Amino acid sequence: MPELQELKAEEKTAFRIPAKAYAAMGVGENLVPWDFTRRNPRPHDVQVDIKYSGMCHTDLHFIRNDLGFSSYPLVPGHEIVGIVTAVGTDVTKFKVGDTVGIGCLVDSCRECENCKDDLAQYCLNGATYTYGIPDRHGDGITYGGYSNKIVCDEDFVLKVNKDLPLDKVAPLLCAGITTYSPIKKWNIKAGDKVAILGLGGLGHMGVKFAVAFGAEVTVLSTSPSKEADAIKLGAHKFINTKNEEQVKSVQNYFNYILDTVSAEHDYNFYLSMLKTHGSMVCVGLPTVPASVPAANLIFQGRSLSGSLIGGLKETQEMLDFCAENNITSDIELINIKDVNTAFERMEKSDVKYRFVIDMATI
Amino acid sequence: MPELQELKAEEKTAFRIPAKAYAAMGVGENLVPWDFTRRNPRPHDVQVDIKYSGMCHTDLHFIRNDLGFSSYPLVPGHEIVGIVTAVGTDVTKFKVGDTVGIGCLVDSCRECENCKDDLAQYCLNGATYTYGIPDRHGDGITYGGYSNKIVCDEDFVLKVNKDLPLDKVAPLLCAGITTYSPIKKWNIKAGDKVAILGLGGLGHMGVKFAVAFGAEVTVLSTSPSKEADAIKLGAHKFINTKNEEQVKSVQNYFNYILDTVSAEHDYNFYLSMLKTHGSMVCVGLPTVPASVPAANLIFQGRSLSGSLIGGLKETQEMLDFCAENNITSDIELINIKDVNTAFERMEKSDVKYRFVIDMATI
Repeated sequence: MPELQELKAEEKTAFRIPAKAYAAMGVGENLVPWDFTRRNPRPHDVQVDIKYSGMCHTDLHFIRNDLGFSSYPLVPGHEIVGIVTAVGTDVTKFKVGDTVGIGCLVDSCRECENCKDDLAQYCLNGATYTYGIPDRHGDGITYGGYSNKIVCDEDFVLKVNKDLPLDKVAPLLCAGITTYSPIKKWNIKAGDKVAILGLGGLGHMGVKFAVAFGAEVTVLSTSPSKEADAIKLGAHKFINTKNEEQVKSVQNYFNYILDTVSAEHDYNFYLSMLKTHGSMVCVGLPTVPASVPAANLIFQGRSLSGSLIGGLKETQEMLDFCAENNITSDIELINIKDVNTAFERMEKSDVKYRFVIDMATI
Repeated sequence: MPELQELKAEEKTAFRIPAKAYAAMGVGENLVPWDFTRRNPRPHDVQVDIKYSGMCHTDLHFIRNDLGFSSYPLVPGHEIVGIVTAVGTDVTKFKVGDTVGIGCLVDSCRECENCKDDLAQYCLNGATYTYGIPDRHGDGITYGGYSNKIVCDEDFVLKVNKDLPLDKVAPLLCAGITTYSPIKKWNIKAGDKVAILGLGGLGHMGVKFAVAFGAEVTVLSTSPSKEADAIKLGAHKFINTKNEEQVKSVQNYFNYILDTVSAEHDYNFYLSMLKTHGSMVCVGLPTVPASVPAANLIFQGRSLSGSLIGGLKETQEMLDFCAENNITSDIELINIKDVNTAFERMEKSDVKYRFVIDMATI
C-alpha cells in the first residue's frame, strides 16, 4: 500500500473501498486471503464487482518474481469479468449494472504514438499493467483480479455481452486477445493453412479463432494424447511432432504458425514447416533465446515475429466477435481457496484449458 | 563437362559453341583460364556475348565449396550483362543485338506453385542456378558469367536499357534485386525510417533503393570511416554501432532494417532498434545461427525475416526502375586476369562497392 504522503490531497481524505483478495505476501509464496482497500472512483473511473477471474501463467511468473520487478503483497489476475457498481462523475461509456471486462492493462500514457494508434500494450512510456505496476496517479501499485472488487479508468474497461457464460468469457481478456490479435492480422482466406503450436490456454483459443476465420487448422504437439481434444476443438489435423513421418508431411506446408509454447523449444524445427513467405508468430515467451539460422528464413522468405496481447479497441472487437460467433474459453471453475492447488496443476498442464476463479467463493 | 551419353540425341550431334572462361579447377583454387563449349541454342534459348560480369561473395563461397555441393571446373558469375548474338527457333522475346542481363537463375521447374507465382527463386523442385547446378535437360552443370559467352532460356533473360552504363548495371542482377525485393515489399511511405546494416555491395544498393522510395535512410556500420560515403550515396544519417550514445539514439527507431551482413553478428542488438511492429530482413547469410530472445520480438511486436534475390518478373521491374531513376551500382572495373587479386580484396571489403569484370579482357 502507498504511504499516505504519496497520495493526492483529495485521496488522503477520500473514503476508500474495502476489498478482499488472495495475495502472495512474498516471492514465490502461496496465495493467502488479504484485506485491503481500493480507491474511490476518480471522475473517469468505473467500480466493478468481480464475478470471475481467469488464471494465467503470467500470474505465476509475477508471484515468483521471474521478471525481477514484482512487489508484494501481489494480487494477480488480468482476466476479469464483473458488474459495474459505481461510476465516476465524468464516466460516459458505462452505467451501474453493465457487464464488463478488464484485461492486462488498466492505464497507459495516452500520449505516445502507440497509445494514439490504439496500441496501448506497446505504450512507449510503459503501460500500467493490471497488477504489480505503480499507478500513474500515485495510488500505490495496481492489484489484479483475484479480488472481489476493482476500480479502473473507463478507457480500459470493455463491454461484455451479458448473455454469454461469463466464467468462460474471463480468459478471453488475455488468452483470447493474445491469440486473436495475430490471427486477425493474418487476414486469413479460404485455403490458408494455419498451425497452432501447443494446446494449452492460449493454443486452444488459437484453434477456435483460426477455425472461425476459415483456415485449415493443424495442432502441433509433442503429446499424441491431445489429438482427440484438438479435433473436438475444431482443428482439422493433428501432428505429433515426435513422429518423423508426420513431421515430414508438413515441411514447407503452413502459411502461418502461432507459437504458444513458453518452454524452451527448437524454433528452427517449426520454421521449416512454413511454406514460402510463411510467418511464425510467438506469443509464448521462453526464457532461453531461440537459435535461428538465417538460411531457414532466407531460402523460403520466411518470417518470425512476436505479438503482445492487443490494444483496447482490438480487445473490444475480439469480445464482440466472440459474442457473434459464440466463442468462449473451455474452463475449469474453481473455488478461490483452491487457487494454490490450481497453480500446481497449471504447471503440469493439467487443465482444460484455463482455471477460472468463481469470485462468489471469496 | 557432361559425358556424351548423358546428352540427348540431338545434342550429341549438334555443333557446340566454343567458349572461354576463368574457372576454379578444384576446391578453393585460384581461377585459371579454361576453354570449354556451350550448347547450341535450343528452340527457346538465347545466345549472349557477355560484356560485363559482376563479382559476388557467393562466387567465393562456391569456389571454396562452403555449401558442400560445388562441382569443378566451376565458372562463377551471376551478374551478367551482354548482347544477344543468336536466338533459338521459338524465341519471341529477344532478337540479335538486344542488350540483356542474366542473374542468379537460368531455369526452374516452371510447374510448382512458386514458379507459377513468379517466385522461381523459391522453386519447390529446386531452381537451376546460373553456375554449379545440373542443367534440367542433361547438359551437364551450369557455367556462370566469368566467361565470354552464355546460352540461356529466354524466360530467364532480362531486358536491359542499352543507354545505361552496362558495367554498372551488371551488379543489379544480384546485389540489386536482392535489396530491391525486400525494400519494395515494405511499400515505403514518406516518413518511414529505414536502416541499412552494412555498407558493401548489397548495402550500397540498399541505400540507393531506400532513398529512391522516399525513406529516411540510416546506414548502420561498425566502421566510422564509412560515414562520408554513406552520405554521398544518399543516406540521411549514419550510426557508428560501436558508439553507445549513437546506438541509444536509435532504440525503437526504425520501421525497417535491411541486414546485409554475412559475418556473425548480434541480431538482438539490431532488433532493439526497431520500433513497434518494425521488421528486420536478412539478406546476408552468416554461417552461425542467430540468437534471438522471443521477448525482443514480442514486447514491441517486431519481426525478423529473410529474403532471397527475386523472381524474374520482379527483377525486370527492378531493372526498369533503375533505368527510369538512373540507379546503377558503384563499381571497380577489372581485367579478368586480376580476378584472384579482386577476390583477396573483396574478402577485406576493399572495394567500392562491386568488382565487375570487363569481359573484353578475356
